[in-house]
Amino acid sequence: MAVEETSASEKLILTLSCPDQPGIVHAVSDIIVSNDGNIIQSQQFGDSDTGLFFMRVELESPRGRTPIDEALEEFGEKFDATWNLDQMGRPIRTIIMVSKEGHCLTDLLYRQRYAGLPIEVVAVVGNHPDLAPVAQFYGKPFLCIPVTKETKEEAEAELLKLVRAERIELVVLARYMQILSDRLAEELAGSVINIHHSFLPSFKGARPYAQAHARGVKLIGATAHYVTADLDEGPIIEQDVTRVTHRDSTRDLVSEGQDVERRVLAQAVKWHSEHRVLLNGSRTVVFN
Amino acid sequence: MAVEETSASEKLILTLSCPDQPGIVHAVSDIIVSNDGNIIQSQQFGDSDTGLFFMRVELESPRGRTPIDEALEEFGEKFDATWNLDQMGRPIRTIIMVSKEGHCLTDLLYRQRYAGLPIEVVAVVGNHPDLAPVAQFYGKPFLCIPVTKETKEEAEAELLKLVRAERIELVVLARYMQILSDRLAEELAGSVINIHHSFLPSFKGARPYAQAHARGVKLIGATAHYVTADLDEGPIIEQDVTRVTHRDSTRDLVSEGQDVERRVLAQAVKWHSEHRVLLNGSRTVVFN
Amino acid sequence: MAVEETSASEKLILTLSCPDQPGIVHAVSDIIVSNDGNIIQSQQFGDSDTGLFFMRVELESPRGRTPIDEALEEFGEKFDATWNLDQMGRPIRTIIMVSKEGHCLTDLLYRQRYAGLPIEVVAVVGNHPDLAPVAQFYGKPFLCIPVTKETKEEAEAELLKLVRAERIELVVLARYMQILSDRLAEELAGSVINIHHSFLPSFKGARPYAQAHARGVKLIGATAHYVTADLDEGPIIEQDVTRVTHRDSTRDLVSEGQDVERRVLAQAVKWHSEHRVLLNGSRTVVFN
Amino acid sequence: MAVEETSASEKLILTLSCPDQPGIVHAVSDIIVSNDGNIIQSQQFGDSDTGLFFMRVELESPRGRTPIDEALEEFGEKFDATWNLDQMGRPIRTIIMVSKEGHCLTDLLYRQRYAGLPIEVVAVVGNHPDLAPVAQFYGKPFLCIPVTKETKEEAEAELLKLVRAERIELVVLARYMQILSDRLAEELAGSVINIHHSFLPSFKGARPYAQAHARGVKLIGATAHYVTADLDEGPIIEQDVTRVTHRDSTRDLVSEGQDVERRVLAQAVKWHSEHRVLLNGSRTVVFN
Repeated sequence: MAVEETSASEKLILTLSCPDQPGIVHAVSDIIVSNDGNIIQSQQFGDSDTGLFFMRVELESPRGRTPIDEALEEFGEKFDATWNLDQMGRPIRTIIMVSKEGHCLTDLLYRQRYAGLPIEVVAVVGNHPDLAPVAQFYGKPFLCIPVTKETKEEAEAELLKLVRAERIELVVLARYMQILSDRLAEELAGSVINIHHSFLPSFKGARPYAQAHARGVKLIGATAHYVTADLDEGPIIEQDVTRVTHRDSTRDLVSEGQDVERRVLAQAVKWHSEHRVLLNGSRTVVFN
Repeated sequence: MAVEETSASEKLILTLSCPDQPGIVHAVSDIIVSNDGNIIQSQQFGDSDTGLFFMRVELESPRGRTPIDEALEEFGEKFDATWNLDQMGRPIRTIIMVSKEGHCLTDLLYRQRYAGLPIEVVAVVGNHPDLAPVAQFYGKPFLCIPVTKETKEEAEAELLKLVRAERIELVVLARYMQILSDRLAEELAGSVINIHHSFLPSFKGARPYAQAHARGVKLIGATAHYVTADLDEGPIIEQDVTRVTHRDSTRDLVSEGQDVERRVLAQAVKWHSEHRVLLNGSRTVVFN
Repeated sequence: MAVEETSASEKLILTLSCPDQPGIVHAVSDIIVSNDGNIIQSQQFGDSDTGLFFMRVELESPRGRTPIDEALEEFGEKFDATWNLDQMGRPIRTIIMVSKEGHCLTDLLYRQRYAGLPIEVVAVVGNHPDLAPVAQFYGKPFLCIPVTKETKEEAEAELLKLVRAERIELVVLARYMQILSDRLAEELAGSVINIHHSFLPSFKGARPYAQAHARGVKLIGATAHYVTADLDEGPIIEQDVTRVTHRDSTRDLVSEGQDVERRVLAQAVKWHSEHRVLLNGSRTVVFN
Repeated sequence: MAVEETSASEKLILTLSCPDQPGIVHAVSDIIVSNDGNIIQSQQFGDSDTGLFFMRVELESPRGRTPIDEALEEFGEKFDATWNLDQMGRPIRTIIMVSKEGHCLTDLLYRQRYAGLPIEVVAVVGNHPDLAPVAQFYGKPFLCIPVTKETKEEAEAELLKLVRAERIELVVLARYMQILSDRLAEELAGSVINIHHSFLPSFKGARPYAQAHARGVKLIGATAHYVTADLDEGPIIEQDVTRVTHRDSTRDLVSEGQDVERRVLAQAVKWHSEHRVLLNGSRTVVFN
């Protein structure tokens, strides 16, 4: 019966953050123990700078999630906590936004199908139609929403409508090349992940790979971060670099850079979808 | 007064492992909370293969360590747990064993003095006198205990005597080039860290760097591990590699390899000394 | 006219190896200079172990390749040299062999189309039909040649026929999971690239990732190499590793390992196709 | 006799750069061949952006360096080339400049003595006396030249005098923490190597590690470069990064950063001393 089904044993992931104080772990473990549950794996971190405490718990609950949910309501109020409880392994409902470059999209769709990336790609949205065939190959709906200066507001409204209608939990900007308006960025705060190239030193303005080439850098990298109103300045989730040499042309740098971009973005999406990334002001806590 | 001193607030590190079962975290947090303590940071891991549960907690105890210690005694019996409680940041009493190559010794002593490596080097022990000046420069006693086939038993007895007399907690084989007897390895199980070169594929026998060169490998690496009766097969703590090319001679490989060796060994010693490494059968759990 | 076309300026890549002796570079540059050519980029390496000299030259020849070819004939005889002259950027005619796992195939086809991998994929050959859709998506012919103990000889004959009929220059074993017979391996020596997982230490026998997990390794890697009669022991082209932890299950290791495999294989195929890899006995010289 | 000594066989390293044109390699190899010499190893690179050609040759000259030198004079004029000929393995006369932090100094002196770093440390110069014992331990003269706003000109004059008197070829700023005047930077152009921390994104102003911590970066790095009048903007020789996490305090970042700094600086000094680094405008060509 339905009732029994809901109360069947479930593997759950709990994440929470709250002002640090004695007794948090005890209160959480109390909830689990008093429901006959068991902690499979857990990590906690107290940030002495911000005074916040962060926790991620993988647990098994023989009575299902309902009693845990209820107890967490009370806990959340008492400890002034932000918390989230989810089924372990549940694919996160995701939209992937693209423009013309397919390296990140291809990689995400490949990993979703073959490599255990726990997302459900509800739609691929492009401001150009170029990548529709890639979406089709992986059996994902492709939606073209062109963006011009004039239509930007309208286009964002359409996107937001889609996000709400489809209960989208994650929007991945996979080289989308459009800056979200501050309004949309705030609306979707904490649910939009972007990837951008990164260099030592960093370069502002157009054609960053050409600038990096002109400067003769020996490393090029990429940064995946949550989108905030201040683009490229949101909380960093993951970064990585790759080595280049004097023999590499600007074109080679672009190609190497794309390789890092797709790897870093996929890693960030994976950690986010496994509820491993918690926001800590302008920084992140990554329980990887 | 002494009593007040003991009961002053202390930062502590608790590590434990025990057969997995519901209630472990709850019981531990109960001990901390009921002594007005606070968890600063913690990690837990349940290994479904071995059925063991591992936990590391950094905590603040306003009443000092004594009441925590007492409560853990009881906990340990109830949960069949192996546990350790230590002052956070206390330098681990260490002997560094060397032969003729100084790269690891130099690095460890440098990091101990300048880079926060939390060990107290009670003595440097060499089977050759070559590295005495390095120990002297850093103000550490150097003890030469030569080892031949005939004197090995005697030499190990001397070492063991030193370990006991000085309450040594950690013995680092910093390119010691001598195999400990099974007896000594068992006696000091879990407190001896060794470093050795590692290759893909691995090479047995003499002159491994020459073999690696002959094979044309593109990576050379190093592995730091706890010493068990089966040398080079103890639980791995850390590994790393570096890139080499066709231009590198065997001598270059040795030099590159030494660089990886000292980096990997220093990392392993640091993690061990911060109580981040827990034994899990023939494997380790590293809460880094 | 045709004659003029052939003599139009061409960018060429010359690779050669021969017993080391004075005058090689001079003789080669003489050929280029006396044909009004210019060296864009070049690397030389003399291996004091084997006494062989290796050279790779990117050159511009205003009179086309014919006079260079002719002069190299003479040079080759005089210096007992193995040499190859090719148009720069010409895609190498390639067969990709697969079984059921698509991570390497997907990556190679993606890079061929979007990321400048200079191969022409003449066919994808599988011993199972599973990956036909991937080949189709990228518009490549898929050929299923099942292999059983009984049909192996026949299957290899069919493959060899295809290689000859289509003037195939490179066969990539992209997780093909079949061991080529010694006969085929010798027949195609230097033109078959394989990828396999690599560990520190290495593990023999079945289920290597499970063994690596049981051993608690902290790194897993991959090796791309030319296939020789002795599988997994051919000249190494490229190796890389990735970091894993105690939290990773065998399944996680497989997934991480696939990521390294595809990256390393793609790199090896790229370098091979750009004529950057020269055989040096059981080793390689990689002019990257 | 002197004559015979000079004409004994010598291993030499030739580096050169000049405007690209046909015939450079041929002319160089002609010089070597016509003196019965042999090329052991060589690399060439033509930069299509700057139109410059770069070459590094390791050669054996049975008649010594004199005839090669003479022929290069003529070559240099004809091809408008900058060139350098040196004995292979000759230690480069070096001054190491320090302030109070010893991580880079310790590493360089260690590598010079034990790990084949081909420099001759003529003196260690500090603007503070703190690191004198380190220099002493390695048997190197330590010279304290304090620097204040008032004495800077005088201090630089003293340094320059030392450089000239001792025929210093390389000045290493090993966390020297002083900015060289534009005048000195120009005077010593191409012979001063500096190390500084690098981040993605980069941070300007004071306490960069604190800024990096506040920003929550996941990588920290270091850049070694030639000093030009524009500090931190000279031609980059080498860069590397290391991974950090949310658990790392600013102090941890400093410690990790020092590790990268010393590794990157040592690599840059090694390549420079082996004549592997050639200047290409504001960039470098590194024949590693």
